[in-house]
Amino acid sequence: MTEVAEQEIPGAIVVALSGPSFAKEVVTCQPTAVVVASETDDAAEIAQRAFSSSYFRTYTHTDVIGVELGGALKNVMAVATGIAEGLGLGFNARAALVTRGLAEMIRLGLALGAEQSTFAGLAGLGDLVLTCTGSLSRNRAVGVEVGKGRSLEDVLRDKETVAEGVVTAQSARELAAREGVEMPIVDTVNRVLFEGQPARSAIAALMTRELRAEVDR
Amino acid sequence: MTEVAEQEIPGAIVVALSGPSFAKEVVTCQPTAVVVASETDDAAEIAQRAFSSSYFRTYTHTDVIGVELGGALKNVMAVATGIAEGLGLGFNARAALVTRGLAEMIRLGLALGAEQSTFAGLAGLGDLVLTCTGSLSRNRAVGVEVGKGRSLEDVLRDKETVAEGVVTAQSARELAAREGVEMPIVDTVNRVLFEGQPARSAIAALMTRELRAEVDR
Repeated sequence: MTEVAEQEIPGAIVVALSGPSFAKEVVTCQPTAVVVASETDDAAEIAQRAFSSSYFRTYTHTDVIGVELGGALKNVMAVATGIAEGLGLGFNARAALVTRGLAEMIRLGLALGAEQSTFAGLAGLGDLVLTCTGSLSRNRAVGVEVGKGRSLEDVLRDKETVAEGVVTAQSARELAAREGVEMPIVDTVNRVLFEGQPARSAIAALMTRELRAEVDR
Repeated sequence: MTEVAEQEIPGAIVVALSGPSFAKEVVTCQPTAVVVASETDDAAEIAQRAFSSSYFRTYTHTDVIGVELGGALKNVMAVATGIAEGLGLGFNARAALVTRGLAEMIRLGLALGAEQSTFAGLAGLGDLVLTCTGSLSRNRAVGVEVGKGRSLEDVLRDKETVAEGVVTAQSARELAAREGVEMPIVDTVNRVLFEGQPARSAIAALMTRELRAEVDR
């Protein structure tokens, strides 16, 4: 989004604000912490001072690409955890999906020039945890319905809100292919949503990938 | 624990198995993924083969200290998120606590010789997410009761199970002091559990710490 905004408004310095922030909670003054990122420190600090209050905390950041990727990719992982939930899988599977999902996000992020530490922060891990475990997530809700066996078309027909993860799943797969990055969870979401693979066999295939070391060495 | 076991059984090679694995779900064959860590690859691989099944996935690891610290420290963070929940705070605050909690775990881990990447994996982030968001967590349940205003003594009297995070909070604070590591969430949990600070003011103090950059540069 910052790339688009900077093209449309030449000379503007655009700040990206992202992090775990269900709008309903921000509106009711629930404590919330986010990051504001810009390539120049000054811009992020101006935004930090403008938006901070006793219940809304803003941390400055310089990794604009990482912050934006975190906010976008986490929606795909939320669809994946929703599918698992719809299939009746438990908390252990969800935690594993969140963890392996973050690893995929980091791999794509590094290929696109983002910093690893961004994904360990509020705009990465924080937003991922919120979206995959908070009951208000739209993306997760879509996944749950698909996991229960409804078609994507059928699920989207009923929704008044936008589930960004559905579109982002396709963009993420294209970016991963272009960059030569392995993203098995993103692939799985695409196969279930758009290629008719039954959710159960797709998730089973994901869980039984070849045994190996957790960190490639 | 591996240090204790190796002292008690001289010459033994001890493997640490840890990760997001509520026992109730493992027993009912729900998909679960964990790590098995040993300082020699061979031992971890033997354990990997011995424990793996279609629903229980084991990834090998060499960072024994990191895997063990992740499993212990996450319980303190679960108490913290429970306290926030008991106070009525929402998902945004919980996601922020999980994120900043992982940062604290990493700081202490690095000081004690663990590897940062371990905390991004199943034994760190994975187990943290499970324990802070899964409804079965004993540590979180204790935090919730304390957040609602009950005393720790009163809460523990009713429990038949062990909430390790209560004891680990004290150990973590001592280790952090010895290593000169800042752990504000661990400090807050200690102040609420053992020093009579009201939960509301303690959590408010945590949320309104000085504004700064998310990643120290």
